[in-house]
Amino acid sequence: MSSSPVSDKPSESTPDFNNIHVVLVQTSHPGNIGAAARALKNMGIPNLRLVEPRTPFPSDEATWRAASATDVLERAQVFGSMEEAVADCGLVIGASARSRRMPWPVLTPRQCANHVVQDAGNNRVALVFGREDTGLTNEELQLCHYHVQIPANTEYSSLNLAAAVMVICYEVRVAMLEALAPEGSEAARREQRFAGDSVYNPDNESEFWDVPKADAHQLELFYQHLEKTLTDLTFHKPDNPRLLMQRMRRLFTRIRPDTMEINILRGILAYVDEHVKIANNKD
Amino acid sequence: MSSSPVSDKPSESTPDFNNIHVVLVQTSHPGNIGAAARALKNMGIPNLRLVEPRTPFPSDEATWRAASATDVLERAQVFGSMEEAVADCGLVIGASARSRRMPWPVLTPRQCANHVVQDAGNNRVALVFGREDTGLTNEELQLCHYHVQIPANTEYSSLNLAAAVMVICYEVRVAMLEALAPEGSEAARREQRFAGDSVYNPDNESEFWDVPKADAHQLELFYQHLEKTLTDLTFHKPDNPRLLMQRMRRLFTRIRPDTMEINILRGILAYVDEHVKIANNKD
Repeated sequence: MSSSPVSDKPSESTPDFNNIHVVLVQTSHPGNIGAAARALKNMGIPNLRLVEPRTPFPSDEATWRAASATDVLERAQVFGSMEEAVADCGLVIGASARSRRMPWPVLTPRQCANHVVQDAGNNRVALVFGREDTGLTNEELQLCHYHVQIPANTEYSSLNLAAAVMVICYEVRVAMLEALAPEGSEAARREQRFAGDSVYNPDNESEFWDVPKADAHQLELFYQHLEKTLTDLTFHKPDNPRLLMQRMRRLFTRIRPDTMEINILRGILAYVDEHVKIANNKD
Repeated sequence: MSSSPVSDKPSESTPDFNNIHVVLVQTSHPGNIGAAARALKNMGIPNLRLVEPRTPFPSDEATWRAASATDVLERAQVFGSMEEAVADCGLVIGASARSRRMPWPVLTPRQCANHVVQDAGNNRVALVFGREDTGLTNEELQLCHYHVQIPANTEYSSLNLAAAVMVICYEVRVAMLEALAPEGSEAARREQRFAGDSVYNPDNESEFWDVPKADAHQLELFYQHLEKTLTDLTFHKPDNPRLLMQRMRRLFTRIRPDTMEINILRGILAYVDEHVKIANNKD
């Protein structure tokens, strides 16, 4: 297997999606080829390689299931053996559903993705999937540096081929995006818009949420108003508070209302106050 | 629609696969239903719920694509609306491909899985997917506590429905197995359970929330009561609703009130109703 570096700057190892190849060996169902092409394009992986597809390729079924990923099918390279298909790849990881006769280093999909990221700057990387019924042969598995196993229900561990391709490619995408987004960059902020991590991330909130959060002072005014209104309603009995206000504070504080929401809530309290005043004055 | 807590031990919150439900809304292609059933079984998730499948169900195509997961299809429940399908669920997460008119808290698949693990002890959890062409409607998305977005190629971000189901279920499986694994310290497991979620601060909260979350049906009753009370107060003018109820729903939904908090809020509304009645009768 050739391991000539793709880049002429061996010390430059920014991982590149263009170096990642998914290899499907002797696929039976053309629908799986099409669905796999769609999964690749969804996850930003441009290269598909087919080894001896067992039904004629290309086909209408593959094209239909590829949906808007027909370009991936059109660019797909076809080889006569797995050995030829991975010859120019510096890292080869093969999907394996169960342990075989000879133990081999096995990775989870997440660990597989980390390896891909480490090598996809300087090397072509191959992610290899076998036949729907029998997977990869022992000889083919021994052409791999690592095997990858998708954690699955022991009662039914056989994934559809295109579904397995999607899981591996999804983990690769997540790992690649993390590696490619420097801290605080536009790309990182854009990715955080979809990450929503810490649900309300102050760094990306103004881009995403439509109104600024209420500050602590506005919140405090709201709680004081709420407590007074609840007391006037006789719902809140100050001599027997029963943790009511604590629970109310915990309820509203933990989700950080924005200023419009606080204004609405205070407006509601004002309307309630008015009705309470009328009701009480007429008793 | 039952709203009784799933467990009679609120302090016991070992997450349970049996509490996890995948909901498919108005699926067009029966092959996608079958493939989704297979993905569920592969990932150890037993429950499939279908809302108004757009082609007749069951069907040969669904059965064929389910492969050895036909038992999941046979147990699948069919509902007339998403609201009915999630009524007994304390956590509802909906798949959303793009941002909508009103921003909503968004999770990555990994964060989604962490939330599922946190809640799948005491609550039924619903993971909801929409139509192949148009996803979920705005109204359906507002029945969700969170939305989940799968990071995808901006040039082609539309995943096949069953492929999207597989990605979400895979992340759920990984998170569940980590949480259920006997090795590792109790503290480490607790930390993982809360990982990536700053809404629940483990420093000021018991490890297990003390009361089960209100399910979707209880929440819906609360919103209807709130809308009526706000209308009677003349605060909510039905001819010019100005997104008020949407904002209220978004505020309270993301708070994830527990059953005690919902009872308190409804009690407050009842007191308000009483005063409004008195005030109005005396005008």
